[in-house]
Amino acid sequence: MNIVLPDGSVKELEEGATVADVAASIGAGLARAALAGIVNDTPVDLDAVVSDGDSVAIVTAKSDEGLELMRHSTAHLLAAALTDMYPGVKFGVGPAIENGFYYDIELPEGVTVSPDDFAAIEARMAEIAKSGAAIVRREVSRDEAREIFADQPLKLELIDELPEDETISIYQLGDFTDLCRGPHVPDTGKLGAYKLTKVAGAYWKGDSDNEMLTRIYGTAFFSKKELEEHLHNLEEAEKRDHRKLGRELGIYMMEPMAGVGLPLYLPKGARVIRTLQEWLRRDLYERGYEEVITPHIYNADVWKTSGHYGFYHENMYFFQINEGTDEEPRYSEYGVKPMNCPGHVIIYKNELHSYRDLPLRYFEFGTVYRHEMSGVVHGLLRARGFTQDDAHIFCTKDQVVDEVVAILELVDYIMGTFGFTYEAEISTRPDKSIGTDDMWEHATESLKEACARRGLAYDINEGDGAFYGPKIDIKVKDAIGRTWQCSTVQIDFNMPMRFGLTYRTEDNTEETPWMLHRAIFGSIERFLGILIEHYAGALPLWLAPVQVAVIPIADRHKEAAAEFAGELKAVGGRVEVMDQNEPMKVKIAKAQSQKIPYMIVMGDKEVEEKLVSVRERSEGDLGQWDRQKFIDVIRDAAI
Amino acid sequence: MNIVLPDGSVKELEEGATVADVAASIGAGLARAALAGIVNDTPVDLDAVVSDGDSVAIVTAKSDEGLELMRHSTAHLLAAALTDMYPGVKFGVGPAIENGFYYDIELPEGVTVSPDDFAAIEARMAEIAKSGAAIVRREVSRDEAREIFADQPLKLELIDELPEDETISIYQLGDFTDLCRGPHVPDTGKLGAYKLTKVAGAYWKGDSDNEMLTRIYGTAFFSKKELEEHLHNLEEAEKRDHRKLGRELGIYMMEPMAGVGLPLYLPKGARVIRTLQEWLRRDLYERGYEEVITPHIYNADVWKTSGHYGFYHENMYFFQINEGTDEEPRYSEYGVKPMNCPGHVIIYKNELHSYRDLPLRYFEFGTVYRHEMSGVVHGLLRARGFTQDDAHIFCTKDQVVDEVVAILELVDYIMGTFGFTYEAEISTRPDKSIGTDDMWEHATESLKEACARRGLAYDINEGDGAFYGPKIDIKVKDAIGRTWQCSTVQIDFNMPMRFGLTYRTEDNTEETPWMLHRAIFGSIERFLGILIEHYAGALPLWLAPVQVAVIPIADRHKEAAAEFAGELKAVGGRVEVMDQNEPMKVKIAKAQSQKIPYMIVMGDKEVEEKLVSVRERSEGDLGQWDRQKFIDVIRDAAI
Repeated sequence: MNIVLPDGSVKELEEGATVADVAASIGAGLARAALAGIVNDTPVDLDAVVSDGDSVAIVTAKSDEGLELMRHSTAHLLAAALTDMYPGVKFGVGPAIENGFYYDIELPEGVTVSPDDFAAIEARMAEIAKSGAAIVRREVSRDEAREIFADQPLKLELIDELPEDETISIYQLGDFTDLCRGPHVPDTGKLGAYKLTKVAGAYWKGDSDNEMLTRIYGTAFFSKKELEEHLHNLEEAEKRDHRKLGRELGIYMMEPMAGVGLPLYLPKGARVIRTLQEWLRRDLYERGYEEVITPHIYNADVWKTSGHYGFYHENMYFFQINEGTDEEPRYSEYGVKPMNCPGHVIIYKNELHSYRDLPLRYFEFGTVYRHEMSGVVHGLLRARGFTQDDAHIFCTKDQVVDEVVAILELVDYIMGTFGFTYEAEISTRPDKSIGTDDMWEHATESLKEACARRGLAYDINEGDGAFYGPKIDIKVKDAIGRTWQCSTVQIDFNMPMRFGLTYRTEDNTEETPWMLHRAIFGSIERFLGILIEHYAGALPLWLAPVQVAVIPIADRHKEAAAEFAGELKAVGGRVEVMDQNEPMKVKIAKAQSQKIPYMIVMGDKEVEEKLVSVRERSEGDLGQWDRQKFIDVIRDAAI
Repeated sequence: MNIVLPDGSVKELEEGATVADVAASIGAGLARAALAGIVNDTPVDLDAVVSDGDSVAIVTAKSDEGLELMRHSTAHLLAAALTDMYPGVKFGVGPAIENGFYYDIELPEGVTVSPDDFAAIEARMAEIAKSGAAIVRREVSRDEAREIFADQPLKLELIDELPEDETISIYQLGDFTDLCRGPHVPDTGKLGAYKLTKVAGAYWKGDSDNEMLTRIYGTAFFSKKELEEHLHNLEEAEKRDHRKLGRELGIYMMEPMAGVGLPLYLPKGARVIRTLQEWLRRDLYERGYEEVITPHIYNADVWKTSGHYGFYHENMYFFQINEGTDEEPRYSEYGVKPMNCPGHVIIYKNELHSYRDLPLRYFEFGTVYRHEMSGVVHGLLRARGFTQDDAHIFCTKDQVVDEVVAILELVDYIMGTFGFTYEAEISTRPDKSIGTDDMWEHATESLKEACARRGLAYDINEGDGAFYGPKIDIKVKDAIGRTWQCSTVQIDFNMPMRFGLTYRTEDNTEETPWMLHRAIFGSIERFLGILIEHYAGALPLWLAPVQVAVIPIADRHKEAAAEFAGELKAVGGRVEVMDQNEPMKVKIAKAQSQKIPYMIVMGDKEVEEKLVSVRERSEGDLGQWDRQKFIDVIRDAAI
């Protein structure tokens, strides 16, 4: 019997050989590392029998499938512990999820589980795991299954929903038997390090008409080190939550009465947003962009022409305007803009263009509104209203690569400024699309060539481009390893044609320009949310809403404090004088909790000798400085 | 018989004395100057007989009534000329209007009047006027009137509409008899200088269901000098029309498909707007304001609480948002914001406040949308979408005067920067209003006191305050004498109460803060429109979208031109290098037509000697300058 390995090589094996035998035939190390197999694209247990002609891959801890499998098995281990500890518990489903697993359970009347119980549950899990218990698969008939799960009503419901011809399998781990498709690791000795993380309510099958179950979440990794790193990051993420910090640092607020997903920016948030905008604005002018400002509402005719009316209608907000008189009303439909592109296209069309004018680069800090379900809005990261650092570039076909290279350079400059590393992904032609093969080919190759010229590696996301053209997405990695999709560069074949844009070529013919959509931050407010979490609220000096807290020790130092604050403001500094009647230590603690980069203490000696005592938020006391030296630090931080 | 004069003095006259007699009894000068009279508040002709106890005022060229009267009489003179020149012409109405008069006429079949005919009509008017023809009033019966106007169907219609008991009067001037209430100047010798200005169509009685008449407009002043000044200003206003200049200078565009009253700002317009905003922003921070940024849409609950839902509904745009899911939709009404105040109130309410925090001054460049009928929108001066330089100040009752003084100081600084003079108007309590007598009293007195402290004279606009509080409006006067309402300061008793705002007093009780609404520009875009007309497009150096055009004479000077442009940009200059292959004179003409403040010409000598040839848009050639000297000019112009 011959089977085919992932590298294409063929291996001869005895009839009746299992996946484990395949692994062993390759090497003793792989035999030890093997957790499961993938036979003809289907994941199976290690003891599954292979057949002549099968393609067989071995799943180990190193493969993504291995991690998922192990987490799924750990969910069974949790269930086994719960079975022992909470007699009468009923089980729902218990899958692997990102970074871990959960199990949904129905506890007996009057019994509850809280994080206080986690230690005990984990101890019981460890006991079961320590025994190296096998996780055993068995295929059963439907009747047999119904009998096994006779006291598990939720499992019975699942059995009833299985198609007639489906093979029904069960897995046994300790005292727990689960209705499960598998596969699993062969025994608990192969599990990794795990930890229960939280308890939440969850509707059975996610349907609010159903009963509420108790969902116990856990996280699991093959090594204890990875687990600890993950737990640390979780803790960090919670500490860095931009919603918590946003409130504490006076960045933004939400008001339920005002609406869902509509943040209001408090003075400190507005300062940061304006600083980000002004910094980017100046840079864009240097790069040959020009700013435009377009309305937030347009007649629906615009959205019909752009195609948003048809393709994006459910994400938009429409209303009626009376274009007639009170006596003779005549209503037109208008829509709040979800994107800025039509405005820029209209501006392009306002004048005749020659190839000599191109490329034209219009940018706008355009606030857009897009419908999101109220269940998914999340602080600044997912809101209904946000401001894009949007730009549209109109160019000739031959200019596309240069323009994309310039955009990638800008991405690198911006992301580098914040210490973000990033990855690129090129999304190619989807099934439903417009434009000729030739256009798609040229466009996709242009994006690839631009990445190559920038030395930027990229993944290909096959078929995930927009219907109107391919794109590059940039995903940044923050200080605690999370990735965020921010920048995007999209080629658009659609809009220039729909709006009938043209330019006159050197040969005096009319051509349709190519159009690029691009955003670097993406949404400025979302980017701010990411920055807050990335920096744990301690924004860099140039961006901090308050850069310096000047702290007079006693009343007699107030005047000098105010004077020095004035000198700092004169060089563009953002300064707060803390002249409340409170002890210096309290003021320093306050400034520290506000993550103000510098605290300047003014006492007798500082006033007399024209010095300043400088304290940095993370480095602490930096000693006494010449005033000018500190003024220079602040001047240099001005954008 | 005794009559009472405006100064309260009593004059004894013979029975049967006329208004003219009253004038003569006062003095020979007044007798000559007299045009008509006002008897017991009713305007009457000079030959009207007065009765015992009447209050009598004499109307002369110096009174507003005199100007209106003369213009009305000039309309009759026009009609007299038309009667002669266009036999069979039918007359509608011919009133005085601002700066002049018009007459609506129906011309005989096939006959038209155009501005080409104005000279001939004016000549005929002059002939009639020269004869010093009397303008004679006669009261007639309804039947008599119907007979006199038998061939004037429009007049017959008017006669039929007169109430039964109305005295019907007619006025005769040359061959023209008009149905007219009067009064008029006694004869054409009392008319001033006039000029016909335009022809337009106008529906009879302003109703589009009626026939279209021909309206001939004229303007008239007592002196030829005033007329010429007015005509000059009209011409100037046309040349300065911000819609024309806005297009020519690349400031903004309108696109019918995009919607009515929704300007799109082109790169140069955006530059000016951002410069104005940044300039004001920095100033506001120095004055203790803090910027906030609030959404453009809010749940209708906000508008219900603020009162806009009830009082401002027809000016707002409302739509529905699904707050539920696709399966279980649950709609909430949202409204696009017409004002920024509720957002700032919500921000105030986000924290507890003590009297120590007050005053709090929040500002926002908030783009608002207000419904205007499509017939009244007018470029940037009246649009549906615009950005207010809005601020709301929350303070204690005792702080109001200081805050208003500070606002008036800011108004003075801003308006002074643009060379505007201005007038103030205080609007007091209207019939329908909220708030106690005490609050109104204190608020109105505070506004008056603030004006007094600023040495600012004001008119009182009795009963024209908002229902929620009194206000100061500032009207600026532009370079050609037109006035524009821009800044406003309003006290609001309503919104703090409706939203339940409080602060903790020194005595540890809860108080409602006072709230001031204020805007300096009003709408930034409207102010830009006013600035364009005020400066005839030649915006001051610091505000000009392009400050310098650098013009290389030949190709070999391009590098030096680009280099110098770079040096100017480095000090914040907005520079354009005109390196097209065109003659220098053409480039200068282009820069001149774009109203670019400085043109820098670069030729051999300039390159060799490191000089620049400087040309200023209005002063012309300023000779060769040391480069640093010019760089300093541009640096100093940076905001």
